[in-house]
Amino acid sequence: MLNRLKELVNKPQRHRHPVYGPAPLLAQPAWLEGEHVEVVDELAIPFRLWTIRVRSAHQAAKVIKEMRTRAVGQVYTALFSLALEALKHRRRSERALWRAAEELGSARPTMPLRQLLEGVMRRAEEASGERRLAEAVHTSAVSFAQKIAERRWMWAEKAADLLRDGAVVLTHCNISGGLVMIARICRHRGKKVSFIATETRPYLQGARLTAWELWVEGFSVKVIPDGAAASFLARGEVDIVLVGGDRCALSGDVANKVGTLQIAIAAKEFGVPLYIAAAPDPSTPSGEDIPIEYRDPDEIFCGGWGIKLPKVFDAMYPAFDVTPAEYITGIITHKGVFRPQEVCKFFER
Amino acid sequence: MLNRLKELVNKPQRHRHPVYGPAPLLAQPAWLEGEHVEVVDELAIPFRLWTIRVRSAHQAAKVIKEMRTRAVGQVYTALFSLALEALKHRRRSERALWRAAEELGSARPTMPLRQLLEGVMRRAEEASGERRLAEAVHTSAVSFAQKIAERRWMWAEKAADLLRDGAVVLTHCNISGGLVMIARICRHRGKKVSFIATETRPYLQGARLTAWELWVEGFSVKVIPDGAAASFLARGEVDIVLVGGDRCALSGDVANKVGTLQIAIAAKEFGVPLYIAAAPDPSTPSGEDIPIEYRDPDEIFCGGWGIKLPKVFDAMYPAFDVTPAEYITGIITHKGVFRPQEVCKFFER
Repeated sequence: MLNRLKELVNKPQRHRHPVYGPAPLLAQPAWLEGEHVEVVDELAIPFRLWTIRVRSAHQAAKVIKEMRTRAVGQVYTALFSLALEALKHRRRSERALWRAAEELGSARPTMPLRQLLEGVMRRAEEASGERRLAEAVHTSAVSFAQKIAERRWMWAEKAADLLRDGAVVLTHCNISGGLVMIARICRHRGKKVSFIATETRPYLQGARLTAWELWVEGFSVKVIPDGAAASFLARGEVDIVLVGGDRCALSGDVANKVGTLQIAIAAKEFGVPLYIAAAPDPSTPSGEDIPIEYRDPDEIFCGGWGIKLPKVFDAMYPAFDVTPAEYITGIITHKGVFRPQEVCKFFER
Repeated sequence: MLNRLKELVNKPQRHRHPVYGPAPLLAQPAWLEGEHVEVVDELAIPFRLWTIRVRSAHQAAKVIKEMRTRAVGQVYTALFSLALEALKHRRRSERALWRAAEELGSARPTMPLRQLLEGVMRRAEEASGERRLAEAVHTSAVSFAQKIAERRWMWAEKAADLLRDGAVVLTHCNISGGLVMIARICRHRGKKVSFIATETRPYLQGARLTAWELWVEGFSVKVIPDGAAASFLARGEVDIVLVGGDRCALSGDVANKVGTLQIAIAAKEFGVPLYIAAAPDPSTPSGEDIPIEYRDPDEIFCGGWGIKLPKVFDAMYPAFDVTPAEYITGIITHKGVFRPQEVCKFFER
């Protein structure tokens, strides 16, 4: 599996940082390769490590809908498959490209994929006449992907600044390669850090993805049950809590994977700082404006490793919770770290 | 399965309450029947409902060690198998009975089983000469089991007093039939209550046992992931938190299944009262005197439904956490409800 991994991360189309090397696999789990997009199947990890070959925007939308790739992986998959369509449609109409962008944009309505792809299309239109639109779309999509990669490294450097040598970081769910980037930066700076990852039921993104990606790159990580986070915080065994954020309101309230709120409350109670990686969303004034998505309760009966369990009772699965600003020490963005109450300053820098 | 259940709960040796009927199955999951003890295999629930026939103290010790029965079930199994040995050894020496009591007592060192069985033996010795010791041991063991059953109903009545009509109770792990007793008492008093049960990873005692036993008796219960408790508390969807306690110190600090602490902190934060069912242990001055048992991290890789998963990284599993008295509204005992700081008054009543 490690050989297969080395082969994957060294693919020519993966973004390389001048110092820290190719992007960690879950930080860029999709890339353009000739006439197709390679997408790492995150649902198969840690059992198998394979990629799905995507040859059209339609296939990419399917892969996104099935959650074979998640979060930033969905963004890369959408951008590269749009670039692919641009190559294929070099001699065809503008409409075919817009149709592809729309199909990709509607694959995950809760993510701002549609706005992102519309932005790519509009920029391409501005930069070219209709005759050379396809070329401009290809350039625009690929350069946008490049920008995301650069910003994520900038973000990881700000996060690494917060960690002292020997720090123990508690995390929840998965930040798509984020912790691996931070750990690589710390290693480069001569700081040693280690991680405690919650399992993150029901899909076990902590046990399956966070633990796997840190383990694969040789960093120290221990998995704990979701219920155990407070007891490690209470005993002073954690220096800092670091999690991702799905949506950050202008008030500094942040929605993230369910379970974040109770870790945040316990962290404040025991005086452990908690940082969330997120950029503020200008369309969300406060935490109360973030709807909580109740996912199919059937997911509770899934072992999280693809195993289905017998259903003998009811279940409820709110996929996210909202952590109010008062429990958050800082919001980490690629522009720097902001106090949650001042996260609006992000737009001024 | 429901027919098999009816057959099991109506066995003649199960204790019956004059008003509320036979003990819920997990409240008394072991009973004496002719020349053997029947023990409900709790590891098989909710997949199968069967009992194990135990014919000696040696077999009972094995069943206890394997955790086929838990908590109060282990106490019943030990008491009834000692009573069984007394019947068998009617014409044999006192030593054989003491040996049986010792083997049973050492089956779970972390529980006060040994002290309990020694107490039963000493009371029998006081009540009889050596000639009739076996008979006295049988009587003493069976009457002790009877006393436990009565005290648990007394406890459940005190707990039911705390619930208003329509109350939503959040619980964690499993209180061995306790919630079913409370729900039955509420039903008898014309109060409707419903339950939210956390899954309680890694062994899923909440999803497997608490949800199952409430569902079997027709009470309303919903299972949530462990990480979701705070979000239900934050949204005001819980009226009261009710959990069991594995060990209550004289200071009012209580050790219970890991995960209790973070629910307690969140409950206090959002103004929801939290009650713990426990009797104070005179040998434990404060929470700091309760050692935290780290169980085999392999248990993290168990799906909680008997399914073993691949081990690719480290894990840590502290089985318990200690909730300090300041987060607890009240300790529920069969003598009444005490403020945790005043739990010593238990010994004065």
